[in-house]
Amino acid sequence: MIDLAPDPAVEVLRVRVEDFVRDVVIPSEPRDRGVHGLDDGLRAELQDRAREAGIFAPHIAEEYGGLGLDHRGQAVLFEEAGYSLLGPQALNCAAPDEGNMNLLARVGNEEHRERYLRPLAAGEVRSCFAMTEPAPGAGSDPNMLRTEARRVDGGWAIDGRKWFITGAEGAAFAICMARTGESIEGGRGATMFLVDADNPGMRIERIIDAVDRSFPGGHAEMVFEDCRVTDADILGEAGEGFRYAQVRLAPARLTHCMRWLGIARRAHDIALDRAQEREAFGARLGELGMVQQLLADSVLDIDASRLLIWRCAWALDNGARGTHESSVAKAFVAEAVNRVLDRSVQICGSVGVSGDAPLGRYITEVRPFRIYDGPTETHKWSIARRALRNRARTREHA
Amino acid sequence: MIDLAPDPAVEVLRVRVEDFVRDVVIPSEPRDRGVHGLDDGLRAELQDRAREAGIFAPHIAEEYGGLGLDHRGQAVLFEEAGYSLLGPQALNCAAPDEGNMNLLARVGNEEHRERYLRPLAAGEVRSCFAMTEPAPGAGSDPNMLRTEARRVDGGWAIDGRKWFITGAEGAAFAICMARTGESIEGGRGATMFLVDADNPGMRIERIIDAVDRSFPGGHAEMVFEDCRVTDADILGEAGEGFRYAQVRLAPARLTHCMRWLGIARRAHDIALDRAQEREAFGARLGELGMVQQLLADSVLDIDASRLLIWRCAWALDNGARGTHESSVAKAFVAEAVNRVLDRSVQICGSVGVSGDAPLGRYITEVRPFRIYDGPTETHKWSIARRALRNRARTREHA
Amino acid sequence: MIDLAPDPAVEVLRVRVEDFVRDVVIPSEPRDRGVHGLDDGLRAELQDRAREAGIFAPHIAEEYGGLGLDHRGQAVLFEEAGYSLLGPQALNCAAPDEGNMNLLARVGNEEHRERYLRPLAAGEVRSCFAMTEPAPGAGSDPNMLRTEARRVDGGWAIDGRKWFITGAEGAAFAICMARTGESIEGGRGATMFLVDADNPGMRIERIIDAVDRSFPGGHAEMVFEDCRVTDADILGEAGEGFRYAQVRLAPARLTHCMRWLGIARRAHDIALDRAQEREAFGARLGELGMVQQLLADSVLDIDASRLLIWRCAWALDNGARGTHESSVAKAFVAEAVNRVLDRSVQICGSVGVSGDAPLGRYITEVRPFRIYDGPTETHKWSIARRALRNRARTREHA
Amino acid sequence: MIDLAPDPAVEVLRVRVEDFVRDVVIPSEPRDRGVHGLDDGLRAELQDRAREAGIFAPHIAEEYGGLGLDHRGQAVLFEEAGYSLLGPQALNCAAPDEGNMNLLARVGNEEHRERYLRPLAAGEVRSCFAMTEPAPGAGSDPNMLRTEARRVDGGWAIDGRKWFITGAEGAAFAICMARTGESIEGGRGATMFLVDADNPGMRIERIIDAVDRSFPGGHAEMVFEDCRVTDADILGEAGEGFRYAQVRLAPARLTHCMRWLGIARRAHDIALDRAQEREAFGARLGELGMVQQLLADSVLDIDASRLLIWRCAWALDNGARGTHESSVAKAFVAEAVNRVLDRSVQICGSVGVSGDAPLGRYITEVRPFRIYDGPTETHKWSIARRALRNRARTREHA
Repeated sequence: MIDLAPDPAVEVLRVRVEDFVRDVVIPSEPRDRGVHGLDDGLRAELQDRAREAGIFAPHIAEEYGGLGLDHRGQAVLFEEAGYSLLGPQALNCAAPDEGNMNLLARVGNEEHRERYLRPLAAGEVRSCFAMTEPAPGAGSDPNMLRTEARRVDGGWAIDGRKWFITGAEGAAFAICMARTGESIEGGRGATMFLVDADNPGMRIERIIDAVDRSFPGGHAEMVFEDCRVTDADILGEAGEGFRYAQVRLAPARLTHCMRWLGIARRAHDIALDRAQEREAFGARLGELGMVQQLLADSVLDIDASRLLIWRCAWALDNGARGTHESSVAKAFVAEAVNRVLDRSVQICGSVGVSGDAPLGRYITEVRPFRIYDGPTETHKWSIARRALRNRARTREHA
Repeated sequence: MIDLAPDPAVEVLRVRVEDFVRDVVIPSEPRDRGVHGLDDGLRAELQDRAREAGIFAPHIAEEYGGLGLDHRGQAVLFEEAGYSLLGPQALNCAAPDEGNMNLLARVGNEEHRERYLRPLAAGEVRSCFAMTEPAPGAGSDPNMLRTEARRVDGGWAIDGRKWFITGAEGAAFAICMARTGESIEGGRGATMFLVDADNPGMRIERIIDAVDRSFPGGHAEMVFEDCRVTDADILGEAGEGFRYAQVRLAPARLTHCMRWLGIARRAHDIALDRAQEREAFGARLGELGMVQQLLADSVLDIDASRLLIWRCAWALDNGARGTHESSVAKAFVAEAVNRVLDRSVQICGSVGVSGDAPLGRYITEVRPFRIYDGPTETHKWSIARRALRNRARTREHA
Repeated sequence: MIDLAPDPAVEVLRVRVEDFVRDVVIPSEPRDRGVHGLDDGLRAELQDRAREAGIFAPHIAEEYGGLGLDHRGQAVLFEEAGYSLLGPQALNCAAPDEGNMNLLARVGNEEHRERYLRPLAAGEVRSCFAMTEPAPGAGSDPNMLRTEARRVDGGWAIDGRKWFITGAEGAAFAICMARTGESIEGGRGATMFLVDADNPGMRIERIIDAVDRSFPGGHAEMVFEDCRVTDADILGEAGEGFRYAQVRLAPARLTHCMRWLGIARRAHDIALDRAQEREAFGARLGELGMVQQLLADSVLDIDASRLLIWRCAWALDNGARGTHESSVAKAFVAEAVNRVLDRSVQICGSVGVSGDAPLGRYITEVRPFRIYDGPTETHKWSIARRALRNRARTREHA
Repeated sequence: MIDLAPDPAVEVLRVRVEDFVRDVVIPSEPRDRGVHGLDDGLRAELQDRAREAGIFAPHIAEEYGGLGLDHRGQAVLFEEAGYSLLGPQALNCAAPDEGNMNLLARVGNEEHRERYLRPLAAGEVRSCFAMTEPAPGAGSDPNMLRTEARRVDGGWAIDGRKWFITGAEGAAFAICMARTGESIEGGRGATMFLVDADNPGMRIERIIDAVDRSFPGGHAEMVFEDCRVTDADILGEAGEGFRYAQVRLAPARLTHCMRWLGIARRAHDIALDRAQEREAFGARLGELGMVQQLLADSVLDIDASRLLIWRCAWALDNGARGTHESSVAKAFVAEAVNRVLDRSVQICGSVGVSGDAPLGRYITEVRPFRIYDGPTETHKWSIARRALRNRARTREHA
């Protein structure tokens, strides 16, 4: 039965997050631009306060200290947390840790869960997910994976180069994707390894001078050189890496959508405030038709984004793989969030491109979202192909 | 609890409508362009077959021969019916009758319901809604209403000119909006009158040469000249016309969205078939990136449109006025439907602008939807103003 | 030396065309929609009056009764003529005759020029250009040409089917493209034949129910069946058909741009008038920001379109092939003209979708322009490939 | 006579600038993001080399050491210089100095020209233009000017606050706009004062944390407090400040367009290179339709931008005020440049949002251009009003 009201228990939590972000998180936001994430002290403090508020780790099972919400519940809370760039870190539901926690919970064995998931869920450590490679390696096309793990005495030796690995600096461990078969076919042929930060075969070569600054640790270029791991470090089963990547990806790209939708709302609110206050040409900005159009278009984008996210969350909660729904959500929301921000900046004028409103900072924070987790074009490609396939099937059966 | 599955009973009906449209309605579609609606004989025949199929008048209470579905159920069925321009007429849920039925059901007294609603619900007669006026009268701005009803002996005399009155030709009666107070304020000051077609004071001056052709009766310019009616012909209460218009408008504009979404899907399917079949430059069209992009953008538009419609239907079913939701749905869907059609035409190339695919016809059918029931710009204006108001209120209470 | 003032002599002619269109052509425009072109009597009368005004056949050499203007001069005059759908026919510079005249002038031999060009230039007859084929034949991709001319005793026999052949009904002759070589390579392998209307091997199978109505004769599906022609009927040389098609195409698609830009200006002027006169929400439409935005966007589109057309005309006048410039002009102008019209319709509201303003009619007239003479996507494809090639070349030489 | 070839002498210079930028300027570009402009030593060195190359100060009269080019010549050279963010500084034609030089040359008296223009033209000093104010002062609406100069013994005392004053830090002098009349009417009532950097009444309060980093000195908030100046410091005549601002603005906003078009071309070239080199899904990026579409759209934007700039330059060279042409150019080019950059970033993927390509840096450099010198919306507002006025006038005279 079509219903668009969140679970009442979730709504209670949402209000708590809303209050928490307004009263605790936003006052902690740095005033200057250009800092990588937030420092560990502040992070720990905010996480403590989130824990006190009963809103910590919404996506994690209660046995690991979380709220155990389903995807729909996460959708509601992550959006609310995302209203500040610091919110998801305060709630310990930021990327890439959040996706890694889900992966460990679903694929990891008991030992992995105790050793990696538990401290991660508690916010004691951070992690990274080492899949993407510099050209000509695996970007949007996984078949181009070049990092290789070869059988050696006592386990495996990984060699390769990874790129744009978010949060690598300071992470306690990495989940590294490496080719272990002759060929990558049908999602098989690659394996995920858990690699501890102190493994001498894994090193950070440089922090990439990326435009965004809010991910703790930034984005690193990493080198794996004769990096030794054992069978016990395989996450799940050997050869199944890409299948697990899919398990991780659909929800992970959806949670990105949720969080960034929060920033879109924040930007929109800033623009609304500005339109309310600022006068020009004898009227308040908010009375000018072109400004109203910008505002209304943002409302449309925000409302449609939320519904597309909720639909995908609902599908995932019902056991669907959500491939279509998450691609549609990602393709729409990534573009919509950037549009909303762009309009908000435009309404705020020179304030919008300065540090006086946080909008200037958001410009470079949300731009990459149209690229990572699959560029919009890649998602459209797969959406179109699926549409063609489904239609052909429908006609056959008609 | 967020849920995006229609009621199972509705889903059963939807499949029935899908089959009915494919097997009965589409084969009855005229092959040439340029005809006004469909002729009365075919209309009656299709309605009989819809009745047999148990899908007639989904929106009407069972006591009047309908299925008594709520707005969500209507959303599902109307979209499916809208897959053919004839579908809504076959199911007797086409505009403007569908909106008039709702209005009569909600505002009409017992006598009105028997005399006007019952035959309308049964598909025996058609009706029209005479509100819009030519410039400088009431277009999107109701305050400019010029048609006037003045007290005369034994009742009222209506004088004025109405314009773009859909379905007037052949309608058994009109619902006419006229100014009855000194001023239009707070939604008060105008009254709705039920006027029978044989009233000598009401006449059709001309059928407007409008670009769309599928509404039975087309769009008329009507003249009311000393048109005599009595107090018994007042729909609801005197002075409350604009309030009732609101009652009618939110759902009526939403059902337009539902039906036109059906045509968007049809156009998209035609484009998918074409992309599957047609080759150019050594590849099937559907393998070309630019075509895939057009197809994917249409998927996004269709999916987002449906969710925005469902949200509004859900809100209405929960007793909300749905002003925000219906404005957002109308503003988004009207544009989206036109975009989907435009892309589909482009993919089909010259076939798309000929009568060989029905797309050419749809171009002029759906274009006006961005204008009637409030042009997109008017909806954006009210969406922006509401957003500003709500934000100001939130800040006050923060 | 960069200069954006038309030749003074051309400016004198432009004013004359402007006056002529306003005073003679527009008053002759039909009031109803749905007619194919204009009848022969009115056409002849308007052409006589254009001749009297000294503005007939601007593109034709003086020896054939024209003004002998270069492409830049044509750009100025055709745009002005295009302000009415009838203008180009009055000046005898409408498609497809105008392109055929150029082709005959440049490729035809003395006999062809006397027999075909002279009466065509004088407006005594009409012609058609039979190249496009129904799927799976030659659409945007010429390599798919299926119509074939085979050597027979005394000449050639053409067999094939042509589609969307504008003006075929009533044309005195067709220029038919047929495959004459084993393969189409490097622009070779096809031949253009002049076929008289009374040739028993050529017939019109049907007039396609196309959305546009203003081309005299509409668009036909034609069949060539054992259609006998001789070597003397070959236009230019055998095997060179596609090379000539290129000769015809770049200027022909540019003149389309010129004429349609005229309609865009007309639509924009109608919208400006409406914005000036119509009031809503207590203001004239033209004072509302969203309307101003629509108007300004149209100004931008019109100004940019004109400059891109002029640039290409200048390039052609300087002996360049103008492939890049005409592709850019076509891709930009076709979309821009449709956007301008769309905005104008939106500003005019319900008047815009009725026959009360001519805008409703233009909707279906200009839509196909984004498809014929190469869909926008095809032009973008070739623009991108050229850009990639040129850039690679620049780097090599740097 | 319409001509789109630059003057041959200008073309010679253009090639020189092209070579200079490629061989001298680009190799000097900083590798990291986040620096304000370039340091004075490098600036002086690049300027020396530009002088040697005979391309220094293209816009300045020869008597002041420049090339004395007209606006069309500037259009060609500034675009070429703009291919690097450092290029305009190397040629001493960067904002705000370039606009200030023009203003001093046209409005300054002999003494002003010797004292201020000569060293500025030689690149020995920098300057700033202090007009914009923080809310609720003069943003896009000059009537809101709050900074005031009042008559005091021996001259004037200026009080007020200026904002987003580019290049103030390190400038040798400011041109300050202050209210000197009772009201601002018909462009009168404000005066421009030349204020030396060592004037104790003028101070920089802070450097605004703006998103862009390439203007030397950044953007400052300045305070004028009992800032004493004399009549001799008035630039031009008292009360005429806004008239002069207009003199400065149309060309200044046009030269911004020229320079930023250079960056758009650079970004596009980077994207072309990437599309040439990078493979994905079994093809080079440049063979994928969606990438081709992005590339082609950028070509259209670049070509149309250049023509609109040239048209305005031509109008200015012919003595026109160029109000319409410069508004159209600014409104179109500012948006187009940002679109081109955005597409280029998207094509380059993660490289595009990192410091590995300079694209990431450009994101924040060009974004403000849609806001300063009049936000796009303000230009559209004036374009629409002018269009309405012109149309009304045409109809009156028809």
